[in-house]
Amino acid sequence: MLESLFTPGTVAVIGASATPGKVGYAVMSNLVNGGFDGTIVPVNPRGGDILGIKAYKALDEYPSTVELSVITVPQKFVKEAVSDSLNAGAKSIIVITAGFKEVGAEGARAEEELVEMVRHRGVRMLGPNCLGVINTHHSFNASFAEGIPKEGGISVVSQSGALLAALLDFAAERSLGLAKLVSIGNKADINEVDLFAALADDEETKVLVAYLESISSGDEFIRVAENVAEKKPLVVLKSGTSTAGVKAASSHTGSLAGADIAYGAAFRRAGVIRADSFEQIIDFATALATQPLPGGNRVAIITNAGGPGIMAADAVEHAGLEVASLDSFTASALKAKLPDAASVGNPIDVLGDADPERYKAAVEASLQDNTVDAVMVILTPQAMTKPAETARAIGEAHDGKKPILAVFMGGQDVLPGRSELVAQSLPDYPDPERAVSALRAMVDYVEWKRRPQRVVTRFPVNRRRVERIISQHVRTGRLQVSEVKAKAILGAYDFVVPEGGIARSGDEAVEIGERLGFPVAMKILSPDIIHKSDVGGVKINLTNKQQVRDAYDLMMLRIPQLAPDAHIDGAYIEQMAHPGLEVILGMTRDPQFGPMLMFGLGGIFVEVMKDVTFHLAPITAEEAMQMLRSTRSYALLEGARGETGVDLSGIAGGLQRISQLVTDFPQVAELDINPFIVGEVGTDPVAADARITLSEAGES
Amino acid sequence: MLESLFTPGTVAVIGASATPGKVGYAVMSNLVNGGFDGTIVPVNPRGGDILGIKAYKALDEYPSTVELSVITVPQKFVKEAVSDSLNAGAKSIIVITAGFKEVGAEGARAEEELVEMVRHRGVRMLGPNCLGVINTHHSFNASFAEGIPKEGGISVVSQSGALLAALLDFAAERSLGLAKLVSIGNKADINEVDLFAALADDEETKVLVAYLESISSGDEFIRVAENVAEKKPLVVLKSGTSTAGVKAASSHTGSLAGADIAYGAAFRRAGVIRADSFEQIIDFATALATQPLPGGNRVAIITNAGGPGIMAADAVEHAGLEVASLDSFTASALKAKLPDAASVGNPIDVLGDADPERYKAAVEASLQDNTVDAVMVILTPQAMTKPAETARAIGEAHDGKKPILAVFMGGQDVLPGRSELVAQSLPDYPDPERAVSALRAMVDYVEWKRRPQRVVTRFPVNRRRVERIISQHVRTGRLQVSEVKAKAILGAYDFVVPEGGIARSGDEAVEIGERLGFPVAMKILSPDIIHKSDVGGVKINLTNKQQVRDAYDLMMLRIPQLAPDAHIDGAYIEQMAHPGLEVILGMTRDPQFGPMLMFGLGGIFVEVMKDVTFHLAPITAEEAMQMLRSTRSYALLEGARGETGVDLSGIAGGLQRISQLVTDFPQVAELDINPFIVGEVGTDPVAADARITLSEAGES
Repeated sequence: MLESLFTPGTVAVIGASATPGKVGYAVMSNLVNGGFDGTIVPVNPRGGDILGIKAYKALDEYPSTVELSVITVPQKFVKEAVSDSLNAGAKSIIVITAGFKEVGAEGARAEEELVEMVRHRGVRMLGPNCLGVINTHHSFNASFAEGIPKEGGISVVSQSGALLAALLDFAAERSLGLAKLVSIGNKADINEVDLFAALADDEETKVLVAYLESISSGDEFIRVAENVAEKKPLVVLKSGTSTAGVKAASSHTGSLAGADIAYGAAFRRAGVIRADSFEQIIDFATALATQPLPGGNRVAIITNAGGPGIMAADAVEHAGLEVASLDSFTASALKAKLPDAASVGNPIDVLGDADPERYKAAVEASLQDNTVDAVMVILTPQAMTKPAETARAIGEAHDGKKPILAVFMGGQDVLPGRSELVAQSLPDYPDPERAVSALRAMVDYVEWKRRPQRVVTRFPVNRRRVERIISQHVRTGRLQVSEVKAKAILGAYDFVVPEGGIARSGDEAVEIGERLGFPVAMKILSPDIIHKSDVGGVKINLTNKQQVRDAYDLMMLRIPQLAPDAHIDGAYIEQMAHPGLEVILGMTRDPQFGPMLMFGLGGIFVEVMKDVTFHLAPITAEEAMQMLRSTRSYALLEGARGETGVDLSGIAGGLQRISQLVTDFPQVAELDINPFIVGEVGTDPVAADARITLSEAGES
Repeated sequence: MLESLFTPGTVAVIGASATPGKVGYAVMSNLVNGGFDGTIVPVNPRGGDILGIKAYKALDEYPSTVELSVITVPQKFVKEAVSDSLNAGAKSIIVITAGFKEVGAEGARAEEELVEMVRHRGVRMLGPNCLGVINTHHSFNASFAEGIPKEGGISVVSQSGALLAALLDFAAERSLGLAKLVSIGNKADINEVDLFAALADDEETKVLVAYLESISSGDEFIRVAENVAEKKPLVVLKSGTSTAGVKAASSHTGSLAGADIAYGAAFRRAGVIRADSFEQIIDFATALATQPLPGGNRVAIITNAGGPGIMAADAVEHAGLEVASLDSFTASALKAKLPDAASVGNPIDVLGDADPERYKAAVEASLQDNTVDAVMVILTPQAMTKPAETARAIGEAHDGKKPILAVFMGGQDVLPGRSELVAQSLPDYPDPERAVSALRAMVDYVEWKRRPQRVVTRFPVNRRRVERIISQHVRTGRLQVSEVKAKAILGAYDFVVPEGGIARSGDEAVEIGERLGFPVAMKILSPDIIHKSDVGGVKINLTNKQQVRDAYDLMMLRIPQLAPDAHIDGAYIEQMAHPGLEVILGMTRDPQFGPMLMFGLGGIFVEVMKDVTFHLAPITAEEAMQMLRSTRSYALLEGARGETGVDLSGIAGGLQRISQLVTDFPQVAELDINPFIVGEVGTDPVAADARITLSEAGES
């Protein structure tokens, strides 16, 4: 798939030009001078000769078929160029020309026309409004970004041409090895997911990097990204994560925090390594492309200076990694090879006058140590320091089994060292913090790879009952489900809800209260009153008949005065739940990634401390437990301050049941169980209050 | 002060050498080739001629006096060299030679001898075990770090010679302008505080940067650092902040690192800008050295590419800064000067083909906009981009009133732009995140500079009463103060404590209970029982005589069985405090920075959520309020969920009173008021329980 985009035999350039400075010239020049060994077919209405190749006045004059067509003509001629390309048998088309969706409605319509044309013929289109494609391993540069980068293992998919250009420019300076580079522009047809799918199995791509401002389809993204991540690291920088960023991206509706949290949840699910800046993309990708993954999080630090060693140890610990304790055998081995004054603890201080051999000995000893999962080698430029030779010595010591990250600090004196590190395929960072961030990303990725098989439990439930309630609501346009009905829905999914009954008179209220046993709660029943407490529509802890009767009469007296237009169906009398720890379970539907489950401790923990975690549905038992563990208040659930813990599996089970419910019923737009009252281990938690909002379309 | 170190007329080099590779050669070569225009006096037992200058066999052969003496002889000859230097009239001595405190007890003794020698003569000594001193503005390099950096406004004090070497090397590559560079080595005599004091008024130093592994004296550090920060930015990287880091630090320098939290509190107090990495030192210092401080936190973003613009907006918002809304006048001005397709919102998109003039117009408009406090200019390398000319245009547009930070993304194509940015005194960052961090540091510094005058309130208290209690305890070695006495101490400092009395029999207990009015609490009284609850020594909510009598009898029956060795003085009967919000006030003494106050919400908020803040004593009312506002749970104090807030000033007042108490009495090593029960505005909070630990020496 997409071979015609990356390794075409024949390429047409419609809008090819002999005039330097024009995009049509840049593309031609890149194809010709990049070393592409296929056939190039320049097309220019004036014909002639472009960079020594005969140009055709129109593509239909070319006697054979083309595989790929690159279009650089002005916007108004693009449609015709696409048509010509299709007629010439092109399997892929790159539209570099801008002026489509990004400029407004008219451009969007023109873009849609192009999409229809190519889809109709089963042809794929990249762009419009893009930089093009580069495939270094085939010396193929069908873009207007100058020059062809060094061959390597990093492929890049970018929604910003400028960012790709900056990356290419950076790569040229640092000799960064790249594989396939794709600017997706407006991604009218080919989008990030198509390219992920294509590059997942591409042998030349060791690491896949993407810069994205939007995602075309959340579900597909997760499915395909997870498939990539199973095979190779996928690093994504997603911009537009702040309010301001969203504004600049003129992005989707919905709450901002929601969107960013949803992306976080999706990336975690799919094993995507998230980068937060341009530098992190490069920092992460270089380590992942050149080094084996670490087996764990224990780091050996080798340094020729104390200060940077301390900084490295600080950084390792702050990142949640471990400064390896080192085997006693390693200390002996080091003592035999290093001067007396050297420190053979961790950090291993090979001293300011360390020669390459000393570094080599320390690296070898660290790599052989079973308590070490990764090695960081720090070099500062001192009088006797030989950066290049040291880089070579580190490379020689590397057996390819554990990752080594180099931190050559300084500037011009260490430059020869940096070049040699590149030659040795060792990633290099200007300070320990940056190396540690890369290592942390590697460790996270390894943990994701080792995750247990995802098994989503299906609980036996009364699905048909829920179907009836929901369809009745949707049919009558009542999208706000009453508490009573919401609890009925939850009951059908095997949640424990307090027993209760509907009273339409004071007598009935008392009768129900007596049947349930005191104390009871009373809540006003009205489809028009959403915030019941605001109108005095909730009374709890009613302990006898008289209190029930008083509460009923007062509600019926006062609420019609406060909410004269509300239709009142009576009151709901219900058992009081046993006291316990109050938590909140919830669900909102993200426009991109669908149902997202929420968990948090009740009340102030959610409202003030914002101590909540999110996870995309469907969720496994292990993932639900992980949600609990991810809150700062987890110790409270486990039983802090000598108190016994609560039934964690009851909460996890609740999350799984919600997951099943909202997956079964896409009409459920939002759901809150607040409070969900949890007791000791072995007891059933109770859904003491619930709110469900539906959507007609089954989508939010 | 220290002029002889930075601008000496005559410099002796004891251990001067004509052999390249030797430290004594490097120092000579740096002095001679660096352009130093004073007199150089090489001393070498073999005499002869070193780099064209006559060498003396001994310093006493030199007929005149010297101002500065640089010692590079082997360790065993250092003492004699110092003695010779003193006799030659040196006012400052730099001991580069290593092998002192850092190698063990014997070295430490030798170092102490040197200190005594120089102090006796009123002479200052730098080192031992250091790199030396460089003063670029006097072409003076008395170090063994090669070459002399470009003149500029950044001075550096470093406890790691290697880190200074790395910085110099980096500066050479990037043309970073430096002023005075000092390697403080073992800081046996001259330490960071001496240099801060000297450089506070140094006109050539615009920004002072320090790398520190330890601080010699906490009090002095705060005093002097605050004085520097009043005059110019002081950026400090303090390493050894993690457990692992501290371990590495103690093996490296033998210095005791204080808690990281205490350093944070001290830096905030003193207005120190804290850097967390080597890169941040440079990132912050370059902005601070070249740009004016921003008036506020509103940022205009100018970019020639959409993606990086979004990234910048994300970064600005994540850092807690604001994407400026821009004046409508600015939009008009920009519309007149930019192409139609340009975006005149913020980020301002000058489009991919932007020429220098377009950038200039956007910078000028942004600088003139009153809603803008700082400008970030992003450039990506695109076909028409002219990085160098653009840098020049930005420099021309700069009126020096607001900071401009450049983000030139890429590599070799933008290199000419980077050089020109240096020439234009504009700081440059490789991605928006780094620029935003620097801007955030500037904004924080501005906020510190604008802080209100610190006025520490002195409350009228019964100091003598506390004096009596404490001295009695210290005299008898009872360093754990009983709850009753702790409350007496607090009462003397005008805290409201529950009324109570000591009962030695059941009858007495009942009598006190009746006098206080029910409900009451009862607590066992014993100097030997610290955790009263653990032995059943606390009963609360006793509501009548019988309950009081029962509780008393049971305590006297059971506690002697559980704690047979404890001396029991009876029970303390006390009024129950009115319910309210429970908070914790506390104090611990940091070995470096002295009393550090703590505030947090009670119970789980402290124990589980770790939601606490710290501040060094003495504290002002404003700082105490700031402590409250810095907790995540602050909304609870203010009154979340429709509840009324608590008396914030009561809490702040409590913190101030503790501050006064622990400043008045250095014997108080630790103090906890837990819970401190706070009610509605206008009510007095109550210290319901308290614990005080004393130390004999008046120091922890």
